Amino acid sequence: MIRLAVQPLTAEAFAPFGQLIEASDAVRHFPINGGTTERYHDLARIDLDPGSHPVISIFRGQPRPSPYEITMMERHPRGSQAFIPLNGRPYLVVVAVSSAQVAAADLRVFLARGDQGVNYAAGVWHHPLIALDTISDFLVIDRGGPGCNCDEQTLPESTWIVLPARD
Amino acid sequence: MIRLAVQPLTAEAFAPFGQLIEASDAVRHFPINGGTTERYHDLARIDLDPGSHPVISIFRGQPRPSPYEITMMERHPRGSQAFIPLNGRPYLVVVAVSSAQVAAADLRVFLARGDQGVNYAAGVWHHPLIALDTISDFLVIDRGGPGCNCDEQTLPESTWIVLPARD
Repeated sequence: MIRLAVQPLTAEAFAPFGQLIEASDAVRHFPINGGTTERYHDLARIDLDPGSHPVISIFRGQPRPSPYEITMMERHPRGSQAFIPLNGRPYLVVVAVSSAQVAAADLRVFLARGDQGVNYAAGVWHHPLIALDTISDFLVIDRGGPGCNCDEQTLPESTWIVLPARD
Repeated sequence: MIRLAVQPLTAEAFAPFGQLIEASDAVRHFPINGGTTERYHDLARIDLDPGSHPVISIFRGQPRPSPYEITMMERHPRGSQAFIPLNGRPYLVVVAVSSAQVAAADLRVFLARGDQGVNYAAGVWHHPLIALDTISDFLVIDRGGPGCNCDEQTLPESTWIVLPARD
């Protein structure tokens, strides 16, 4: 059994896999609407293949237990996929550095805060939504259009995430 | 002084102006990810002119007081604009049925719940973000690209919103 390390989600650590969607001082922001609103601008790259279009959905995720076994990963070769939490609760982000057969050593596990969204770049191996604690909603921006856009693979080893104690 | 009526936000009432973004039983939904997640699918029409692209941002809005005076309206002729609340708090949506000079009688005011987003169709006159109660974040999906995409006009009459008492 392999136990994966869990790290905080930061823009720098997530950069190889896509973009963090967060209203932080580190991103470009400026006042609009007569100064009543601050715009944190252009936080994610929506990357879709020709002939497709962006689709806005809400995913309502059941919470996963801890320890949690990672048995498979998926990727969307034709488009990016963004998740933004709507209930302010933390969740898990699992991605792989590999572009071929994924082994446990390729996995990176991030504990996202409830005010952090992620945009998986097209083709990045990731685990489906892992909500925590209770049923949670996420806004999702992904792709609609012709052609198969989901590959899956099974992990070869017994691979687990054990969440650290949280407040 | 004109005092505008405030109505609840429903998909039917908002239909002339765009789409409601809400995980309700009335929209198409189906299980994914081995039954661990329910997908409320394709909730908004992202409508952008040729040569432009979707932009994902976060708007951090200052709360507006009640009574609140509506002095101007704006529209984006080249693309839709979606707002989804990230803090679960209600907010105000003000739109106009007119496509030309907007008068107070043309305005419709909706009190949106904190789990309801809206997507303004391209060209629909609307008021900039009206957060309530406290500073609130909204995910925004709008348009990037060449050309002017914001028209504004001033209302000819003194027009006010008085919020009903809320829990």
